[in-house]
Amino acid sequence: METPLKIRPRTRTQLTEQAILDLQSRFGAQFTQAEAYLEQHSKDESFHSPSEPDAVIFAESTQDVSDCLRICSLHNVPVIPFGAGTSLEGHVTPIYGGISIDLTRMNKVLRVSTDDLDCTVQAGVFRKQLSKHLEPMGLFFPVDPGADATIGGMAATGASGTTTVRYGSMKTLVLGMTIVLPDGRVMETTRRSRKSSAGYDLTHLFIGSEGTLGVITELTLRIFGTPEVISAATVQFPDVKSAILAVIQTIQVGVGVARIELMDHEAVAAVNKYSMLGLPENPLLLLEFHGSPEVVNSELLLASEIMTQFGGLNFQRSTDDPSRRKLWMARHDAALAIKAQRPNGELFITDVCVPISDLAECIVQTQEDVKNTHLYAPIIGHVGDGNFHLIAVIDRTNPIDLKVMNEINRRLISRALSMQGTCTGEHGIGVGKMDFLREEVGEVAISVMCLIKNAIDPQNIMNPGKVI
Amino acid sequence: METPLKIRPRTRTQLTEQAILDLQSRFGAQFTQAEAYLEQHSKDESFHSPSEPDAVIFAESTQDVSDCLRICSLHNVPVIPFGAGTSLEGHVTPIYGGISIDLTRMNKVLRVSTDDLDCTVQAGVFRKQLSKHLEPMGLFFPVDPGADATIGGMAATGASGTTTVRYGSMKTLVLGMTIVLPDGRVMETTRRSRKSSAGYDLTHLFIGSEGTLGVITELTLRIFGTPEVISAATVQFPDVKSAILAVIQTIQVGVGVARIELMDHEAVAAVNKYSMLGLPENPLLLLEFHGSPEVVNSELLLASEIMTQFGGLNFQRSTDDPSRRKLWMARHDAALAIKAQRPNGELFITDVCVPISDLAECIVQTQEDVKNTHLYAPIIGHVGDGNFHLIAVIDRTNPIDLKVMNEINRRLISRALSMQGTCTGEHGIGVGKMDFLREEVGEVAISVMCLIKNAIDPQNIMNPGKVI
Repeated sequence: METPLKIRPRTRTQLTEQAILDLQSRFGAQFTQAEAYLEQHSKDESFHSPSEPDAVIFAESTQDVSDCLRICSLHNVPVIPFGAGTSLEGHVTPIYGGISIDLTRMNKVLRVSTDDLDCTVQAGVFRKQLSKHLEPMGLFFPVDPGADATIGGMAATGASGTTTVRYGSMKTLVLGMTIVLPDGRVMETTRRSRKSSAGYDLTHLFIGSEGTLGVITELTLRIFGTPEVISAATVQFPDVKSAILAVIQTIQVGVGVARIELMDHEAVAAVNKYSMLGLPENPLLLLEFHGSPEVVNSELLLASEIMTQFGGLNFQRSTDDPSRRKLWMARHDAALAIKAQRPNGELFITDVCVPISDLAECIVQTQEDVKNTHLYAPIIGHVGDGNFHLIAVIDRTNPIDLKVMNEINRRLISRALSMQGTCTGEHGIGVGKMDFLREEVGEVAISVMCLIKNAIDPQNIMNPGKVI
Repeated sequence: METPLKIRPRTRTQLTEQAILDLQSRFGAQFTQAEAYLEQHSKDESFHSPSEPDAVIFAESTQDVSDCLRICSLHNVPVIPFGAGTSLEGHVTPIYGGISIDLTRMNKVLRVSTDDLDCTVQAGVFRKQLSKHLEPMGLFFPVDPGADATIGGMAATGASGTTTVRYGSMKTLVLGMTIVLPDGRVMETTRRSRKSSAGYDLTHLFIGSEGTLGVITELTLRIFGTPEVISAATVQFPDVKSAILAVIQTIQVGVGVARIELMDHEAVAAVNKYSMLGLPENPLLLLEFHGSPEVVNSELLLASEIMTQFGGLNFQRSTDDPSRRKLWMARHDAALAIKAQRPNGELFITDVCVPISDLAECIVQTQEDVKNTHLYAPIIGHVGDGNFHLIAVIDRTNPIDLKVMNEINRRLISRALSMQGTCTGEHGIGVGKMDFLREEVGEVAISVMCLIKNAIDPQNIMNPGKVI
């Protein structure tokens, strides 16, 4: 086997007049080079440097995406899929220019089946929009990465979130997708049955490929019946280690906890101030339970016993909706709350995931590391999965901040890798973690990724400069 | 993009003397051309024609596999990975000769972590061996395809089974694998964290690739704590349709049923005779519940209400171990029981999966179709997933039987595809379903699979003649 460790290199070049003409004549007003749009499509929510596309095309159908890719492939023009722009590693930044293809007009829920517990949506449907659509039908889609991302974007980055410990991630809940390949051809990755062993798993190949192999235009998703009862609970711990031990035990005995989130004492302090919660400023676990009243009661009881046994204090349940919502709203607003503690600060959010047996050690060492710097960086984590984030606030006008934070992040990732963990549990590689990916998976795996990339996108027009 | 719809063609050629010398000098007694071994490695448990390899190599380590592939790649010799030989579509048959690489000596459980609920095993570990290893530790690995397959083989075919409705399939429970590529290089598909968004999903690329892209030598698996209580139940229905409606409702309201299996009246009649059960000969659902006593009680109660509401008769639970085991043993022996009804018969097992809303219709039409022939083919199904099997018994000495059964299978698959289902829910493509795969996924998806195959195995030495 040849081992092409490289993919086709790119440099930034201007769109040719012919390319502009071809795209304009096909797309009319859906094609724009207006500065406001170029600026909007130059960046995501991360600290990575922006870079404008040469033009933006607002796709309204799979056919639009197909025609766009066919024309761009003909003219060797980069294409960068764009959804909500909420990614955190520069995924949507057109670092070599080209066309940012905006999918947010493809925002229809195409079908919902209550019997099959699945639905098909266009890629530009927003997560909260889908929730709203499903709620009156007694259904919900559980993946909740925090941000109101598009479903297509969530699949492209392999997103997960607070409910993954119970319901799974995009990797487990996307049943199939419609994909436009770099040359404009359209394929379905699979049929609509719940499972299949038919051929190579193209669905998973495109989940987490970050727009580097093609454009996702439609997705069929597993959905769930809204639980009869949703109940939340909080419990404080004297230290992170005992909290994690309690989490391990809870999962081991098979409590089907729907969410189990950790905030360290600094994160609790921040949400206290921001949402006026008055929580004791200790490491905190937030739990949620879903099911029939009997199941939820029994699981709450069992969890409370385990939490207490591992030193948990003040286990409090809140079944009534407003207090449960307030609690989880505070968790969801944690990043905002943390940001608000440092006026004019910007967020730098890390994302490692380790085997849960090493999680406490990884968090404690990271807290120590941060403490030795001048930076402010509380921790929140989807601890049931071993995944946690440093939510650092940095001052962009002070170059020291970014430098120190980059070093903390580098050490954090080395720490996670030394524990057999990953450099990214749910945010993806983007431009920010390409070197870490190589360190994580090794040269042979990288060369297989390059073989796949070169086979499917030999021109390297799809989101060049990302992942590999 | 070029569209190589073909992969490199092969014909059967003899091993060269040099290839034999190279392999013998590296493998000594691990290399054999003894007829008994060649015969054993010529076929799986299906009705597909056998074909002997030129030699068998018993691998004892990843290094053995690597050296075997390096040498075979040098001499352009096909390599066919072999585990338990329990596949059902001719997956392990060396149709172009070459080396059958037997992995059953790689049978060590390498590590088990109770805290992380994961374990790492060599590919040749058998499913029941793993169960036995985990049981004293209060742990279990849930994927149960019926046969005592090897874990590597189960990953290679994308296996699932009776517990998939609750715990998932190989696709969801394999965390990572060690893979030997066709040229002998070794890679890890991922680290050991519970989730990761780092780069292309190589784990899923190799799950279900049926040995056509490389050899799986080690696997890290999610495992679970043994439930405190396991309780089973049976319920009869007047017809298949009401049974399926009850299943749909049970899943919709979120009863976390661990198994939910259907046997049609003919399958029930067969296990009655074989295992002396005395069940009424109606369509039967077998259910299993896992959890704490409170959770299991509550779920049993809810399930029983739903079953009764949809016409279920005689809902009977059996919590005591011997009667539960007897019931599930009967289910596991169903294929044997069915085979025993026709002395000298051979099994022809089909495997479609459809969206559950179409499942009753698909089963009823299939029963009608079988009734119009002279064949005997009861149905059992993992109905929570929409997956079912015709367990046909055919007489190989009567050519009409195979012809008629092939036609039934063809119509069954067309029916499943017309319902947006798949030609294989869990058995895979092998040699038996290559045309159906093309029909199912279409030319564009097939061409992407060919691109991947050609990129990773340009010589087509890995299990040639399978999948694509």
